[in-house]
Amino acid sequence: MKIHGRDTRTIWPAADHTGDVMILDQTLLPHRVEIVRLACLEDAARAIRDMQVRGAPLIGAAAAHGLCLALRADPSDAALQAAAETLKATRPTAVNLAWAVDEMLAAVTPLPPGERLAGAEARAALLCDEDVETCHRIGQHGLKLILDAQARRGGGVVNILTHCNAGWLACVDWGTALSPIYAAQIAGIDLHVWVDETRPRNQGASLTAFELGQQGVAHTIIADNAGGHLMQHGLVDLVIVGTDRTTRTGDVANKIGTYLKALAAADNKVPFHVALPGSTIDWSLTDGVAQIPIEQRDPLELTRITGRTADGCLASVDIAAPGSPAANYGFDVTPARLVTGLITERGLCAASEAGLLGLYPERR
Amino acid sequence: MKIHGRDTRTIWPAADHTGDVMILDQTLLPHRVEIVRLACLEDAARAIRDMQVRGAPLIGAAAAHGLCLALRADPSDAALQAAAETLKATRPTAVNLAWAVDEMLAAVTPLPPGERLAGAEARAALLCDEDVETCHRIGQHGLKLILDAQARRGGGVVNILTHCNAGWLACVDWGTALSPIYAAQIAGIDLHVWVDETRPRNQGASLTAFELGQQGVAHTIIADNAGGHLMQHGLVDLVIVGTDRTTRTGDVANKIGTYLKALAAADNKVPFHVALPGSTIDWSLTDGVAQIPIEQRDPLELTRITGRTADGCLASVDIAAPGSPAANYGFDVTPARLVTGLITERGLCAASEAGLLGLYPERR
Repeated sequence: MKIHGRDTRTIWPAADHTGDVMILDQTLLPHRVEIVRLACLEDAARAIRDMQVRGAPLIGAAAAHGLCLALRADPSDAALQAAAETLKATRPTAVNLAWAVDEMLAAVTPLPPGERLAGAEARAALLCDEDVETCHRIGQHGLKLILDAQARRGGGVVNILTHCNAGWLACVDWGTALSPIYAAQIAGIDLHVWVDETRPRNQGASLTAFELGQQGVAHTIIADNAGGHLMQHGLVDLVIVGTDRTTRTGDVANKIGTYLKALAAADNKVPFHVALPGSTIDWSLTDGVAQIPIEQRDPLELTRITGRTADGCLASVDIAAPGSPAANYGFDVTPARLVTGLITERGLCAASEAGLLGLYPERR
Repeated sequence: MKIHGRDTRTIWPAADHTGDVMILDQTLLPHRVEIVRLACLEDAARAIRDMQVRGAPLIGAAAAHGLCLALRADPSDAALQAAAETLKATRPTAVNLAWAVDEMLAAVTPLPPGERLAGAEARAALLCDEDVETCHRIGQHGLKLILDAQARRGGGVVNILTHCNAGWLACVDWGTALSPIYAAQIAGIDLHVWVDETRPRNQGASLTAFELGQQGVAHTIIADNAGGHLMQHGLVDLVIVGTDRTTRTGDVANKIGTYLKALAAADNKVPFHVALPGSTIDWSLTDGVAQIPIEQRDPLELTRITGRTADGCLASVDIAAPGSPAANYGFDVTPARLVTGLITERGLCAASEAGLLGLYPERR
């Protein structure tokens, strides 16, 4: 997708053919667009750890490239294992990270050391291309839902609400929840996106609004509190969100607050859809609320806010009453009963075991 | 209630007997405790408009005092009417702004101009004392609900969730939604309050956390997004919120996001109560969602956040993607079907016309 009118991905090989890897520093978005060069394993590990790259698919892609950088320095078995461990430890809760590292190990370990770098670079590039293809398919399948919404309202602007950032910045390109929106834009559908600010880390106000703005998609940032009111007044035709983990029964763990939007959508008969690559389904789980552990993060993420000052510098301010404790729950679980449907790279399905097994019969 | 251990109200006559009116500048809380002197009608109108005073009862009290300041300058019929109109226009949603102004007009208009100031000051003082008494009664009636919650859980800490600030800072003293909490504290009940941050203006993180902290009530600030998750996991025994306007059928307009919490409470069978003085009931309305106009405020309230920097200064930072539009809806309406009950100065009742008329038979 575009930044300043120029097509880009979130991660790409350096144009100078050094084998270095380039990323956007997402901790500075939307305030500054800065490209960072990763030249060694530790650069990649730090980029993941410090959330210069974030979003499950992108973290996986960055880890894959990080393994390439490690092999460039030392292609031995010992270095390979050490690099894999370093990368897996950067964000221990991200399932995709371990998956991507294991994919790389499977491709590279059988090769003689002299061929490992080339093999790893090929596999990392393929992993990125596969992610792009998966996201593109999610967009094509989700486009049908936006066309349906347009038909239901008999023309005019289709209003879509989303929570957090499940756009191309969280992936290699296209995104998950935002991919159908980009597909609809390309298809010439008149649409407008309500962007939940997404406290406490503001990924909606910063990242989602930034990427929609760069792409020229009409959008409006709202407080997370506002979605219910908008739905009560017929101002939302469709909700599309992403997910970090989905049970085989269709329960969805996503950014904290998603559950509240799902309740409002159900109460107002607004379709509520969740976009996901099949890789985020945890086939071992059957009850999301009971079984999915919810990460508690640093309370400072809630009480200390970073933004631009009037002179364009970045600064942080504390908003809470001094001495008041805070708690920062990262995710919540939306039960399948509140999810109208799922959008996967294989098509649309009900948020249920039967629905998912219809698309992924190999999991029966 | 207390600030720095000292009992205070939110509005009071200047100690120098000038007739000026003193308020706490709530836009600076919790970062600074500053007292502002109101010396003319425009001071009072600006204080309401700029939310130096906020909360329906306090807005009413400030408007009553504002009318006194206007009469001090000019006690004529024309000035009285103009002042009433100016004050009523400061905030569109709060019904007891108009109520307080009308109360003042009824007391003052029959008087000869020379007696109007004294009459107005007496009525404004009485209105404040009545508000304190009303809030105290709300606390006593609401205390029963907290005792019930304690009994239901068989002892231990009672967890109460609240949204926005409906504490003493929103009134003259005691508060509405927080008054039962202070009554419970006095009664020795072990309790803990989940304080919704309350975006976009952060009244929870700033004002509610501040006043609970000053009063020594255990509390934790959470993102507005978190309440549903807490309820799913049995961490909320009771929700108590305030209201800016209540229909005769029990629909409740309150700070944006209240509706989402009511949905989550209903979904998790958590009692959801609304505390209100009878003056916030709009007996002319029967359908809150359709009939209550919702104030849209400056989008900058959402995208520009003020807080303390590391060196203790106040600073504002912009959090949104540059150029992205934002919308700022101030309130939403929670339908009566989601409200377990109302807490008024006359007792508890169902959120329904029958319930309200049982307590306010004069409105039949």
